[in-house]
Amino acid sequence: MKIAIAGLGTVGAGLIRLLRENGTTLEQRCGCPIRISAVSARDRLKDRSIVLDDSVTWFDDPVAMARDADADVIVELIGGADGIALALCEAAFAAGRHVVTANKALIAHNGIILSEASDKENLTLGYEAAVAGGIPIIKALREGLAGNAISGLYGILNGTCNYILSTMRETGREFADVLADAQEMGYAESDPSFDVDGIDTAHKLAILTSVAFGCRINFDDIAVEGIRHVTALDIRFAEELGYRIKLLGITRRTKDGVEQRVHPCMVRHESSIAHVDGVSNAIVAEGNFVGSTVYQGAGAGAGPTASAVAADLVDIARESRRPVFSFPSASLASLPTVPMDQHEGAYYIRLMVVDLPGVFADVAATLRDEQVSMEAILQHTPASGEPVPVVLTTHDVNEASLKRAIERFAAFDIVVEPPCMIRIEPLAF
Amino acid sequence: MKIAIAGLGTVGAGLIRLLRENGTTLEQRCGCPIRISAVSARDRLKDRSIVLDDSVTWFDDPVAMARDADADVIVELIGGADGIALALCEAAFAAGRHVVTANKALIAHNGIILSEASDKENLTLGYEAAVAGGIPIIKALREGLAGNAISGLYGILNGTCNYILSTMRETGREFADVLADAQEMGYAESDPSFDVDGIDTAHKLAILTSVAFGCRINFDDIAVEGIRHVTALDIRFAEELGYRIKLLGITRRTKDGVEQRVHPCMVRHESSIAHVDGVSNAIVAEGNFVGSTVYQGAGAGAGPTASAVAADLVDIARESRRPVFSFPSASLASLPTVPMDQHEGAYYIRLMVVDLPGVFADVAATLRDEQVSMEAILQHTPASGEPVPVVLTTHDVNEASLKRAIERFAAFDIVVEPPCMIRIEPLAF
Repeated sequence: MKIAIAGLGTVGAGLIRLLRENGTTLEQRCGCPIRISAVSARDRLKDRSIVLDDSVTWFDDPVAMARDADADVIVELIGGADGIALALCEAAFAAGRHVVTANKALIAHNGIILSEASDKENLTLGYEAAVAGGIPIIKALREGLAGNAISGLYGILNGTCNYILSTMRETGREFADVLADAQEMGYAESDPSFDVDGIDTAHKLAILTSVAFGCRINFDDIAVEGIRHVTALDIRFAEELGYRIKLLGITRRTKDGVEQRVHPCMVRHESSIAHVDGVSNAIVAEGNFVGSTVYQGAGAGAGPTASAVAADLVDIARESRRPVFSFPSASLASLPTVPMDQHEGAYYIRLMVVDLPGVFADVAATLRDEQVSMEAILQHTPASGEPVPVVLTTHDVNEASLKRAIERFAAFDIVVEPPCMIRIEPLAF
Repeated sequence: MKIAIAGLGTVGAGLIRLLRENGTTLEQRCGCPIRISAVSARDRLKDRSIVLDDSVTWFDDPVAMARDADADVIVELIGGADGIALALCEAAFAAGRHVVTANKALIAHNGIILSEASDKENLTLGYEAAVAGGIPIIKALREGLAGNAISGLYGILNGTCNYILSTMRETGREFADVLADAQEMGYAESDPSFDVDGIDTAHKLAILTSVAFGCRINFDDIAVEGIRHVTALDIRFAEELGYRIKLLGITRRTKDGVEQRVHPCMVRHESSIAHVDGVSNAIVAEGNFVGSTVYQGAGAGAGPTASAVAADLVDIARESRRPVFSFPSASLASLPTVPMDQHEGAYYIRLMVVDLPGVFADVAATLRDEQVSMEAILQHTPASGEPVPVVLTTHDVNEASLKRAIERFAAFDIVVEPPCMIRIEPLAF
């Protein structure tokens, strides 16, 4: 089987290394050797410490490579939600070649177009590497749990955010401080917004939702909140209340449609997912026969991503074809989005107040008016003239009501900062 | 696709329920409906609360069914390492039908014979349900991690033992007492030896070893120890030392061959696997590119097992064929067994002694003679004439040396019970 690789960054280099080091075992698993016939990257002269056979053809234009290379499979490792990445995938399908990609933005935004194109030509679109790195979660959902109706899933899908939140908890330091360190160590990009604002998690969640429920991808309707507003103080209060704070992607099939959301969550200290620290990813999927199953591992990095790309290549070599998003593209349901205003759950709210004696009566009255049932209120610091934190947690309440209550809190003269709200999630694992 | 089911116990009934309840989603995933064309079970008249169509043919003889039924796939849910189960699988292959089984004993003992028979006819032998219930671990190892050389794996593979050990820890009760309860609740068989003596775990480990390394199954050479000798006292000492006790199946590829072992392990309290409690199963697999990946879920039960059988059926419907044990049967390596005497590791040893002042010098001298390096010694109870526990832990030492030392301890006049030895495992997760 001949493959052409577009993009020779860390993942491309990792894949080339994997194909060389594990060539013998791959040949047994594939029933044939995998040979790199062509590559394409921006700068031909850059030193990448990659050794390629003389027989490998270099293309300056990756789209031309997808069209013209002597290859059965085009591996797209360039990135980007559209542009060159999309053009080269379309060119590959038009030329009768399979595509394997590690590009979550591309699949989240253009997965349906591409699955239709691949279905039309009876070709494979492999994207295991796009979600949760080396964890074979696409295969698990689409094949391993194929006997189930999946009711929902949730997970830690972004290693950068998980590293930052884990480190904030372990060290007591603030977000900006830990982010700067993560950037220095290469765990976060110089523009971190893609990760810390939850967009990367949302890309992956959109894909998982589609695979889990056999529905069309709907990235735009995901309710997304990042982790910038989580403070060291909130993490300490979480610990005191028996929780840890994790950025989760959550998707649930309800009678009204699909609820897809990405936001920081307080999860019980005893849950398994509370103990997934550092750059690890973990996903919990719930099926109506299998119950809850958990998948954990490295969510990024050259080795794990190359591992996932290789798994897709073996599937192609073995002619193992599945509908791209579990169901044939023509059968994918368009499920309505359940708006967050209809969400019911428990909440953590932290207010910074200057007049302690006054605040409790005002808070209680507001909660009563908005029909928000309070579970507990925490206040440690004695009144001192300085702003002090007051934390309250609620029973399960409606999010629209909760948000109205928070708006009213924010308008209190004695509340001197925007209130911090974090959802509390009861989780099976 | 037409299937014939041999065995209508809880798993068979679960499968029939799954095919009915999830028929629509299965049809999308398979590209065709799955229809039950024939069934066979011991007692035709027994009330199983199963509703079957009139079109389903009943066979009194499951082997005749495998040969004669109008079916593409025979599902073997009878059990047993050979006998009828083996005969019906062989009859199915001879008649050109695929086989799906949940029978770990059969695969552990006769998997190679059956994989050769299926390869010869270009048919599928599906056995996802034989290991770890609904967790798609066979698919993960054989396909999801196909790009990796697997260096080893370990896991909690028997829910009964994990339930007993978890409950002993939570309640402080003794093995026999908790086992009796587990039997009453249906978590343990009336003859529990298959589970508590580690044989069931060894069956599953033998299969996982073969899939992970692409080698021939070698059940007979697994070093197997059960959990009968683990006492409430050992569990308390483990806690004090920062460990929990789990029955693990462990397999490692070394330069000398394969080390396969099943025994109680002390695992660090901080490891993820220490927190897998109750009847759950969990497996950690280590690949040279993906790193460590973890798979967790329900290891048994009608629903999870039916889920795994259904996944195999979808694979067959989609014509997704892989070599049964990762590599084609003709290429499966016969890897030598690394004997336990060559094992290097840390150990926990508990002695019950009657003469405390005397014991320390004797123990120290023995350890010095046998070149066993002690890490710590624990002794709480004051001398009283009654036997009191003395616990010692070692650094990494050779198992043969350690066993010689234990034999000498056992011969001491002041040691009044056979010494208890539990291996300490340093684990990634």
